[in-house]
Amino acid sequence: MMIAVLGLGEMGSALAAAMLDAGHEITVWNRSVDKAEPLVSGGARLADSPEAAVRDAQLVIVNVQDGAVAGKLLAAAGTALAGRTVVNLTDGPSEQAAAAAELVTDLGGHYLHGQIMTIAPGIGSPDTVIFYGGPREVFDRHEPVLRILGGRGTHVSEDPSVSLIYGMAIHDIMWGLLNGFLHAAALLRDADLPLTRFTEQAEPSLTALTSLFPMLATEIDRAEYATPYGALKHHLPSIDDLIAESHSRGIDTELPTYTRKLVADALSAGHGDDSYSRLIEHFGPR
Amino acid sequence: MMIAVLGLGEMGSALAAAMLDAGHEITVWNRSVDKAEPLVSGGARLADSPEAAVRDAQLVIVNVQDGAVAGKLLAAAGTALAGRTVVNLTDGPSEQAAAAAELVTDLGGHYLHGQIMTIAPGIGSPDTVIFYGGPREVFDRHEPVLRILGGRGTHVSEDPSVSLIYGMAIHDIMWGLLNGFLHAAALLRDADLPLTRFTEQAEPSLTALTSLFPMLATEIDRAEYATPYGALKHHLPSIDDLIAESHSRGIDTELPTYTRKLVADALSAGHGDDSYSRLIEHFGPR
Repeated sequence: MMIAVLGLGEMGSALAAAMLDAGHEITVWNRSVDKAEPLVSGGARLADSPEAAVRDAQLVIVNVQDGAVAGKLLAAAGTALAGRTVVNLTDGPSEQAAAAAELVTDLGGHYLHGQIMTIAPGIGSPDTVIFYGGPREVFDRHEPVLRILGGRGTHVSEDPSVSLIYGMAIHDIMWGLLNGFLHAAALLRDADLPLTRFTEQAEPSLTALTSLFPMLATEIDRAEYATPYGALKHHLPSIDDLIAESHSRGIDTELPTYTRKLVADALSAGHGDDSYSRLIEHFGPR
Repeated sequence: MMIAVLGLGEMGSALAAAMLDAGHEITVWNRSVDKAEPLVSGGARLADSPEAAVRDAQLVIVNVQDGAVAGKLLAAAGTALAGRTVVNLTDGPSEQAAAAAELVTDLGGHYLHGQIMTIAPGIGSPDTVIFYGGPREVFDRHEPVLRILGGRGTHVSEDPSVSLIYGMAIHDIMWGLLNGFLHAAALLRDADLPLTRFTEQAEPSLTALTSLFPMLATEIDRAEYATPYGALKHHLPSIDDLIAESHSRGIDTELPTYTRKLVADALSAGHGDDSYSRLIEHFGPR
């Protein structure tokens, strides 16, 4: 297949290399030409404009710094996009994906937005997750070639921007997990407890954490938070123990104090017998 | 075996019931006698003081409201504890476990501190994790009977108080994960995306999160934070996207703004090429 790749940063280069390795005909474009050298010496063609890059391609892969840059490139390619499929893998808020989708569709092209859930060395792995949003039939048509980039490509919505929201959600959970882990690590380290030993000995408990998600998801979808066990009121003494232990060791207490406030506010509002999922109300709309 | 159980709240009652069901001779004591009724009608003996409860027991299980209460009960039992093993399963800061261990040892008893990693209905399950700290040989001697309470009882340290620190660490990580999940859930809900569908479609990415722990643990133990990929500087644009998306939807931005500050401070300090694990320095000692 003829594939154009616009943007040759660390990630864009990995995307183009994966397609080249799989035997596809690749045309690349990048603002600074030097980034294209390794790919050109591997057999890729270098185009001198986005419009020239996409002209003969069936599939156009875009991975640039942000959604505003992606929008400019797609506008520059213009009517050359008619009949082609654009797979935009650029990060950014969901409104930029929606705008790019509208632009490409108005130009007569097809549009998918993808969110890559790995770092550059993960491109091409059968385990790599990429979330795609856009028309299902466009995804289905290109699925075999998209699987070259990541074996776990998943179509999540007809709405292109949903891929970005999924990606943000995963990152959101990841940062929560990382911050909690590092706070715990500071406590363990201060008590001279090796972290590697902890992660080994606590492995069943650590693995069990992700089994909470389906339960929380069901409670939130139904807006039913009543729970016979594990209620919010029982979290408060444990948080206070954590704050006291952190304080006595001189470890920053801002993070557990944040959690304490969420729980205490929910108790004040009369939700002490509810599940932790009730706290979604704290975060706001809808 | 003759076992005394001091404290018959929701959890203490579950502990006593599990031992009774396994065919042990149980003596119970609780401040308010009515809590003992279901156990007594099941064959447990009721003692009228902590001292009377422990007198004939080989194993003394303590599960009360907090470490201060546990300390008073053990002091009240006094020299009747000589030669017996106390398994204190009471929550609290680590210093309370250390104080209880000293008290019991001074009275001629043996001491283990346990941290139960489940809610009351989980007691007796083969999957239930309980962390134990204290002399290894004391744990080994009682391991078969302790496995009745939770099949995944694990000896984590010769120091009794370490079990509490392990428990706090797991809770710390859990609250981080829960807060991150609920913030993400608010975003998804606002975009009319069902949470149950998200947890199904994103399952590989959600499961993969816990695979980060061993890597982070190694970096922290070695205090080696340099990383070729996934560096702190690459987190910043993604956090900004999350903040922008949250802001535009009217969702509380305090949590991602907290993360942004940690990352931005580390970048200002010249750690932009390091792994996220470098942020342990933010939290303080040792």
